[in-house]
Amino acid sequence: MNIEVTRGPGLRTHLPYETMKAVVVEEYGAPLKIKEVPKPVAGLGEVIVKTIAAGLCHTDIHAAHGDWPVKPKLPLIPGHEGIGIVESLGQGVTNLQVGDRVAVPWLGYACGECEYCNTGWETLCEKQLNTGYFMDGSYAEYVRAYARMVVKVPDGVDSFEAAPLTCAGVTTYKAVKMSGARPSDLVAVFGVGGLGHLALQYARIAGASVAAVDLYGDKLELARELGADYTINAGWKDPIGEIKKLGGADTAIVLAVSPQACEQAYKSLRRGGTLVLVGLPADNFMQLPIFETVLNGIKIVGSIVGTRTDLAEVFELHAAGKTKVIYEKRKIETVNEDYAAVEMGLVKARLVYEF
Amino acid sequence: MNIEVTRGPGLRTHLPYETMKAVVVEEYGAPLKIKEVPKPVAGLGEVIVKTIAAGLCHTDIHAAHGDWPVKPKLPLIPGHEGIGIVESLGQGVTNLQVGDRVAVPWLGYACGECEYCNTGWETLCEKQLNTGYFMDGSYAEYVRAYARMVVKVPDGVDSFEAAPLTCAGVTTYKAVKMSGARPSDLVAVFGVGGLGHLALQYARIAGASVAAVDLYGDKLELARELGADYTINAGWKDPIGEIKKLGGADTAIVLAVSPQACEQAYKSLRRGGTLVLVGLPADNFMQLPIFETVLNGIKIVGSIVGTRTDLAEVFELHAAGKTKVIYEKRKIETVNEDYAAVEMGLVKARLVYEF
Amino acid sequence: MNIEVTRGPGLRTHLPYETMKAVVVEEYGAPLKIKEVPKPVAGLGEVIVKTIAAGLCHTDIHAAHGDWPVKPKLPLIPGHEGIGIVESLGQGVTNLQVGDRVAVPWLGYACGECEYCNTGWETLCEKQLNTGYFMDGSYAEYVRAYARMVVKVPDGVDSFEAAPLTCAGVTTYKAVKMSGARPSDLVAVFGVGGLGHLALQYARIAGASVAAVDLYGDKLELARELGADYTINAGWKDPIGEIKKLGGADTAIVLAVSPQACEQAYKSLRRGGTLVLVGLPADNFMQLPIFETVLNGIKIVGSIVGTRTDLAEVFELHAAGKTKVIYEKRKIETVNEDYAAVEMGLVKARLVYEF
Amino acid sequence: MNIEVTRGPGLRTHLPYETMKAVVVEEYGAPLKIKEVPKPVAGLGEVIVKTIAAGLCHTDIHAAHGDWPVKPKLPLIPGHEGIGIVESLGQGVTNLQVGDRVAVPWLGYACGECEYCNTGWETLCEKQLNTGYFMDGSYAEYVRAYARMVVKVPDGVDSFEAAPLTCAGVTTYKAVKMSGARPSDLVAVFGVGGLGHLALQYARIAGASVAAVDLYGDKLELARELGADYTINAGWKDPIGEIKKLGGADTAIVLAVSPQACEQAYKSLRRGGTLVLVGLPADNFMQLPIFETVLNGIKIVGSIVGTRTDLAEVFELHAAGKTKVIYEKRKIETVNEDYAAVEMGLVKARLVYEF
Repeated sequence: MNIEVTRGPGLRTHLPYETMKAVVVEEYGAPLKIKEVPKPVAGLGEVIVKTIAAGLCHTDIHAAHGDWPVKPKLPLIPGHEGIGIVESLGQGVTNLQVGDRVAVPWLGYACGECEYCNTGWETLCEKQLNTGYFMDGSYAEYVRAYARMVVKVPDGVDSFEAAPLTCAGVTTYKAVKMSGARPSDLVAVFGVGGLGHLALQYARIAGASVAAVDLYGDKLELARELGADYTINAGWKDPIGEIKKLGGADTAIVLAVSPQACEQAYKSLRRGGTLVLVGLPADNFMQLPIFETVLNGIKIVGSIVGTRTDLAEVFELHAAGKTKVIYEKRKIETVNEDYAAVEMGLVKARLVYEF
Repeated sequence: MNIEVTRGPGLRTHLPYETMKAVVVEEYGAPLKIKEVPKPVAGLGEVIVKTIAAGLCHTDIHAAHGDWPVKPKLPLIPGHEGIGIVESLGQGVTNLQVGDRVAVPWLGYACGECEYCNTGWETLCEKQLNTGYFMDGSYAEYVRAYARMVVKVPDGVDSFEAAPLTCAGVTTYKAVKMSGARPSDLVAVFGVGGLGHLALQYARIAGASVAAVDLYGDKLELARELGADYTINAGWKDPIGEIKKLGGADTAIVLAVSPQACEQAYKSLRRGGTLVLVGLPADNFMQLPIFETVLNGIKIVGSIVGTRTDLAEVFELHAAGKTKVIYEKRKIETVNEDYAAVEMGLVKARLVYEF
Repeated sequence: MNIEVTRGPGLRTHLPYETMKAVVVEEYGAPLKIKEVPKPVAGLGEVIVKTIAAGLCHTDIHAAHGDWPVKPKLPLIPGHEGIGIVESLGQGVTNLQVGDRVAVPWLGYACGECEYCNTGWETLCEKQLNTGYFMDGSYAEYVRAYARMVVKVPDGVDSFEAAPLTCAGVTTYKAVKMSGARPSDLVAVFGVGGLGHLALQYARIAGASVAAVDLYGDKLELARELGADYTINAGWKDPIGEIKKLGGADTAIVLAVSPQACEQAYKSLRRGGTLVLVGLPADNFMQLPIFETVLNGIKIVGSIVGTRTDLAEVFELHAAGKTKVIYEKRKIETVNEDYAAVEMGLVKARLVYEF
Repeated sequence: MNIEVTRGPGLRTHLPYETMKAVVVEEYGAPLKIKEVPKPVAGLGEVIVKTIAAGLCHTDIHAAHGDWPVKPKLPLIPGHEGIGIVESLGQGVTNLQVGDRVAVPWLGYACGECEYCNTGWETLCEKQLNTGYFMDGSYAEYVRAYARMVVKVPDGVDSFEAAPLTCAGVTTYKAVKMSGARPSDLVAVFGVGGLGHLALQYARIAGASVAAVDLYGDKLELARELGADYTINAGWKDPIGEIKKLGGADTAIVLAVSPQACEQAYKSLRRGGTLVLVGLPADNFMQLPIFETVLNGIKIVGSIVGTRTDLAEVFELHAAGKTKVIYEKRKIETVNEDYAAVEMGLVKARLVYEF
């Protein structure tokens, strides 16, 4: 077998000497397959990471379906919440050692040279490559990664908890950062689940009070357990009115994948408030009222994952015991059933594959 | 005659001893009338200002038509770009003297006590009253104003230039401030006119390059004269493509009253860019693409007029010779013709009434 | 008796119809006296507040001694941490009602019109008057205050806890705000006591870890009880080395009144760190190393009390159960002994007078 | 000859096949020598740049003298304002091509992986190596540089003007950025010369008014020509009083290498103002008054050079015709005389070596 399994800057061909078990998307929308594929080899600046845990993010499902305008590579090994041990180092790697435990995040490659990379915004790098999308991901025994893009997992952070933190954690942590939430603010979190259950914790860590909004009672129960000050079942009560009774939200963070949720969140803001968009609805457009946006001095901010530094901070907070990750373990053999369960909203927070 | 001519916190009744000439809206949508009305008297914390100049802003037309959801008082004396001389002081006024030349701006009253007023955001005060809308304005020989809300006009600033600065100036100055525009940025200004011709100057003062977009050649010619680095006729060329060729806008400021302009401006942004909404289209909604907003880390900001401090800075910049105000003088007798001309887009920048 | 007891904008003389018990400074450095003095009467925009509780701040001692370059009025009723009930309203007061429970803070008067007041910085207003310094304070049965400067105390906040929050609370809350401390930062607090015990709580509320530094074991014990992650006895260990072992402080806040503490705090910073100065040493100068400040990109920030909005936030956090105030009750009869005890460092955190 | 001429992460030895002419510091404080030395060879991620122009910065003199606590390498080729043409590429270089014109700045190496590099603060990277200090610089026919650290010089920017922009430009541009200077602010620039003549231009580009302070009339004359609104000869007049008459400085930037200048600049600030330290006096300490810093809400900020992005912006502004660089050409044969002239303050602004 002579196969090129990753896409990166420059083309490479290997003579693989070993194989590994992996989940593979061969066709958009078709069931995922479990196959033996070539084990990757570390090139210049790269490492091979032996997977311990890999979280399932809704984006993995969108990738497998080819839902979004820019399609992922095929065949594709999904997964961008991978935790594992560095097994080998490519040429020129100085920041890692064999045996280090690391996270392999969505931001698989950023150029390090453009204005975005140089100003703290590598997540906007136009040359970025994403793990489990344009590069093979962590639903496999081994994953190849750029050494400078992985993040060390500190001692005291469990690998199965680290996995969801690697995307769900950093994404919501960054969203809270972008929101500017601070002590005495009221933050409304629309959508409690894999992302929302972490978002509300980060808002509280930043000193804010939290109003959690969802359609499911068990998710709101979870929100209460994790410290939400207020919970609102949007199926029974009007979240706009309820939040306005509390004085209106200083910030509303939308993780629910629905333009309606975005519009409700917008309307729940007080004057000068900030709407942070994170979730990516299939139905892409929200109706933004210009008059109210101007008169009320509203800000709307799109927030996309987070940087390596953001992730290191996420791990630091978890190591300090400030966050709780809700997850269930799975084996990759059930991947197709798991995708279905997530799509039907039957999963409380996060599924994590054990390797 | 015994008449209450202003609306404010608390009810007052006077026995006016004099009358004055004023433009009056008696019915939404009807022609404006020129009448003799009671000259106002200064109450607690108020001043009477003898009008020298009063600018015509598109908002005055919306007010006269009763276009917006929250209707202005009736009868109404329009005008929120008034410049005049303090003629008399009410009880408790310590910050002004008779003879001071002042601007009477849109923000006719803010409470001074709420969180917004106390944090530099009096423009969002929920108790605010607006001149020429909820309080009588400057299309009259005299106008009553709260002493602490007026702003002194420095020597060396012409009254007829100060008038448009009092709303068009401060609004666009604040919009540029909110945009975060700074040296080496590219700012796209959508809509050159009463507001746009000032917006582009403030963007340049902040060190940015400016791309001005309009549908009219003469307005783009004006933009060039005022220093726009690039001008784009959106009737002939696609502004999105043209601005993208320049690298995309760091900031786009929309003064044109059209959701289409907002959407074009949005699409002209580079990653991490900021859209500033200022103009208030009759057709209120823009379609905001959630996917692109998130992936590209876009910010959208609504900006409404500016504070007294913003206006003082606007006057300071003008006194330093850094801005140029384009206007034509009128007499109030032509007010109905003038409104019609503005509505038809026949006015280059600003009309200012001479008293 | 016909006496003018307050200094403010404009001179007033009253015919007092009642007297009240008050602590009075008649001469700098002399013992304070307890006397019957005229009860104040509310003028335009003023209220009379019947005192419930009044905290003792070190500034009260400096005032009584006339320690600082700008001297307080004489005779002076001290106290700028007063909590009480509004007993009567002067003319033009609309934001308060008789019976409201309010705090009478250090910022007794700010003009409301200057650039500072208008941009959220009333604490820098050059026309400000300070309670218990230029205006009579709350060490009395009644205190006169400007209605718009007092802050309502929410239900659920005890008056004796509200008192120290009114200065020690808001001052340290603002210092933490100015420091930019946020989740995952390390904040070093130099000096645990009336201010420090609150500073460390606000740093933790903002998501930071805290290293508390003091010379006294019992104060460090208190810091630990209030959540400090690390405590360092600067008498036994080098705080610079200890904090550097933790990676260096992102922010160091100095409440200890000693230039040495400022210099130690400076040196405990990591690159890019921020030193916040709050405490006012008698020995005024710290040696600032220019080379290290430049090469390490250090910021030094002076922070002075906080605004009405900051205080409202402080009360909100306390009502939400997020802060704990350590104090002991006293009667004003012991004021001279209390001053002595505070000067000798014998008081754990805060003394509060009961009326 | 087999010689290792640079110090970087990892040790390398070459068999040089060519030599080049260079200025060499062989001993601290001794005269510099002009010698034939081995021409460097590009390693992994490196480029060789053929020098066109190289500016003389005061830091080069400090380096040659070994003035600072951390000493430069010996032997040392000075120069960190080099402009040249990429002559050859090492392995793995993808962002440059042979023939590109580039600047080789002070920040010769930053790790690209630490929190500072990842958050836009590569100038604070603790692993940084500096050109002309820890790595050989541009006072030579060829210089070796890390490909990702050099910055392309846009067409339309003269190489001899680009040279001073590479350090003096970016350093003062960043200082103005850090100062937060914006339209209508007053910026005081202490020290007009190689840095100051650019600082004042950047402050004006950001919309501020500028008061330039110096001891030499010809430098103040230069400041006026470059647009300074006010010039103050600190030898004849008290700059504090003069600037206070203008309302006080919002920001004071100190380029003069004297603690006295720092202290004067501090005292010239208005309340809430910011002091930016840039120049590095031999006499390292300034006396910082704690009381005034706290009461007046003063900020002091150390600012060190700038990032690659800052430099790209500096070039962009120069290409747009917004800055003017004052320099005189020299040949490296006069380097010892030139150092002496700069030390004696006999040079108007900047000397640039021609190769």
